[in-house]
Amino acid sequence: MVRVPADVSELFSRDSRQIGESESILHDLPNEQSQTISLAYGDADPTCFPIAALVAGVEHILSVNPDPILNYAPPSAQLHELVATRLERRGVAVDRSRLMISHGSGHVLALLPHILVDVGDTIIVEGPSFLGAVEFFASTGATIETIPVTEHGMDLDVLEATLKRLRSAGIRPKFIYAIPTFQNPTGRLMPDHDRRRLVALAATYEVLLIDDDAYGDLHFDGSHAPSMLSYPGSEWVMHIGTFSKILAPGVRTAWAYGPDAIMRRLRQWKSDGPNGPFMTHLVARVSADGWLDRHIATLNQTYAHKYQVMRAAIDAHFPADVVTTSVEGGFFVYGYLPADLPARPLVDVAIRHGASFLPGTTCYANGQGTHEMRLAFSYQSVENITTGIARIGAAMRELRATR
Amino acid sequence: MVRVPADVSELFSRDSRQIGESESILHDLPNEQSQTISLAYGDADPTCFPIAALVAGVEHILSVNPDPILNYAPPSAQLHELVATRLERRGVAVDRSRLMISHGSGHVLALLPHILVDVGDTIIVEGPSFLGAVEFFASTGATIETIPVTEHGMDLDVLEATLKRLRSAGIRPKFIYAIPTFQNPTGRLMPDHDRRRLVALAATYEVLLIDDDAYGDLHFDGSHAPSMLSYPGSEWVMHIGTFSKILAPGVRTAWAYGPDAIMRRLRQWKSDGPNGPFMTHLVARVSADGWLDRHIATLNQTYAHKYQVMRAAIDAHFPADVVTTSVEGGFFVYGYLPADLPARPLVDVAIRHGASFLPGTTCYANGQGTHEMRLAFSYQSVENITTGIARIGAAMRELRATR
Repeated sequence: MVRVPADVSELFSRDSRQIGESESILHDLPNEQSQTISLAYGDADPTCFPIAALVAGVEHILSVNPDPILNYAPPSAQLHELVATRLERRGVAVDRSRLMISHGSGHVLALLPHILVDVGDTIIVEGPSFLGAVEFFASTGATIETIPVTEHGMDLDVLEATLKRLRSAGIRPKFIYAIPTFQNPTGRLMPDHDRRRLVALAATYEVLLIDDDAYGDLHFDGSHAPSMLSYPGSEWVMHIGTFSKILAPGVRTAWAYGPDAIMRRLRQWKSDGPNGPFMTHLVARVSADGWLDRHIATLNQTYAHKYQVMRAAIDAHFPADVVTTSVEGGFFVYGYLPADLPARPLVDVAIRHGASFLPGTTCYANGQGTHEMRLAFSYQSVENITTGIARIGAAMRELRATR
Repeated sequence: MVRVPADVSELFSRDSRQIGESESILHDLPNEQSQTISLAYGDADPTCFPIAALVAGVEHILSVNPDPILNYAPPSAQLHELVATRLERRGVAVDRSRLMISHGSGHVLALLPHILVDVGDTIIVEGPSFLGAVEFFASTGATIETIPVTEHGMDLDVLEATLKRLRSAGIRPKFIYAIPTFQNPTGRLMPDHDRRRLVALAATYEVLLIDDDAYGDLHFDGSHAPSMLSYPGSEWVMHIGTFSKILAPGVRTAWAYGPDAIMRRLRQWKSDGPNGPFMTHLVARVSADGWLDRHIATLNQTYAHKYQVMRAAIDAHFPADVVTTSVEGGFFVYGYLPADLPARPLVDVAIRHGASFLPGTTCYANGQGTHEMRLAFSYQSVENITTGIARIGAAMRELRATR
């Protein structure tokens, strides 16, 4: 008998085999050059990173008592309380035992499908959405229902019809993943009455609502939309927040607040053992005594200005039939392109002109978005935003002329 | 029809339901008081933390170019190369594409069972072992085979007989989890010929060998046992190393090197998205230019001395029929207790005397270890080690007198 040489992949679990080494949905990312002005990604503005505060914070926490910072220890209790207090300020009646400090929001977004989803289960996402999260969900073999995003965020009529249709078919979706506040990628802010209805729909259909609130503090005018945790039915809401956008993505510190049964599983499954306590103490230290509120106010001034610069550049350089979203916060503007300007060829031309954006197809799990684009105003300098938009506008005119 | 009120736990995945909210195997942890001298846990010596180097390192990396440190970015390429070079120094022919920087070794240990194990699959662990890892494995619903640890580490005759028996029964275990170097909890160092045989057994039976090498650099005399990656059959070896013991647990930075197919899945499943690059840059910065080697030499002097202090205290204070392991490195001494000194009652008495240790049952997945104890010399000061051992010795005499 000739034996085929053994390979470790024979040892793979059922899930590993079923899901396969699938190509990433994120196949359409721009192939940027080093000189490209990238408006593709929602990185934070590096000039806003509080370098001095972070260095002083490290010096402080390591000089006071390095043991619980650098040995095995739980996350900072001070940070847990700071997050709880911030939620309370937004009108949430916080049960502190249901609040968890996590290693970035991606940590929780990756664990939730393992806790909730089997191969073949149905989940509901917005289209377009944050595909970093949707990729985690897809990796569990879930069937993904996509709900369009209107001017007011997720289209709740379509959502209700979808929930009704699924229920008729005997399907109870595991969760709805939504970004109601300055949605990634559209920048849309869901109004109060829609927020209330979305929570009510989740409760009526007994489906978990994952509220990814990454941009909640970044309302240019300094106000806050009501927390999804403040409406009737909030026992079906899992709120996820992060310090990535209000301090720095690199601190990898976030939080989750949700139903007790799910929080207990999150703690049980938390796949990387205890978080390093270091960053949680550092974030708590630099955020204390009102510093975080002052920093957020500065960020909102900065990002409001950068958005205005991008808005003015779009008005000056894009053809009139390219429609872009007007936003009041967050990191992104989203564009809807006319039929003769498909995003994928456009980004290739744009990169030749020295600028890039994110093609809309990378924001959908279902192949939609061929004529859509995400533009991030968060990362680049105002000069680069203006130049980048002008270059993309030039690419639009060139592509149009060659068709 | 009266409907039972809906609960989010109805949404749980098959795995969540099957595994249940199981009680932790770690049910037997000492309930220490704040005045207890704990010899239970393998925390690092906080007086060895390089505070000044870490503060200077943060200042440096944030002043040079904070963008790739604090925004979304891959781990430090410099750190990847530093780890590769260190493996090469130990005689490993390193394929850099198979090396991954991870968020602590727990991150990889948690992902491996998801990649490899279905409910009902068999895995093989040492008994006693590091139950933090074994708990991750148990959470996937695996059947656990326990191989005893002798003076030379895992008993390879029992391992071979087990592999043979399982094969006869048509069972191919998914992996063998071993800590061949200064094993947690016994401190045993597997000799060269046994290391060779262990790798050969994994290859013969076509089973993955997970080499948890957390203590590999901590040989008191500064030497290195041969890497498990350096033997014939190493294509079945997954090596996991960490900066936890040689820098600080709180940096949560580790690495994994293994078969290509598994490394690709690890990257695909890496559940918390990109690691924060911050810590990887900081570890690379402080470790550069030979600093890490000098630091490890200092650590080995420190830990060798603390072990000698614990050894002398044990000889002075423990009854002669308590047998403890002699070790050449690592963090732990392991004790075998006579029939009239069961560990669980003993630790209660010891805590009344003001000291604690880890009962052996917490190091077994199968309830063994009732008359065994782990003593960590890594964390406490030399004064506390002496006092703590004296107190535990007094507890032994008291418990013996009352029986």
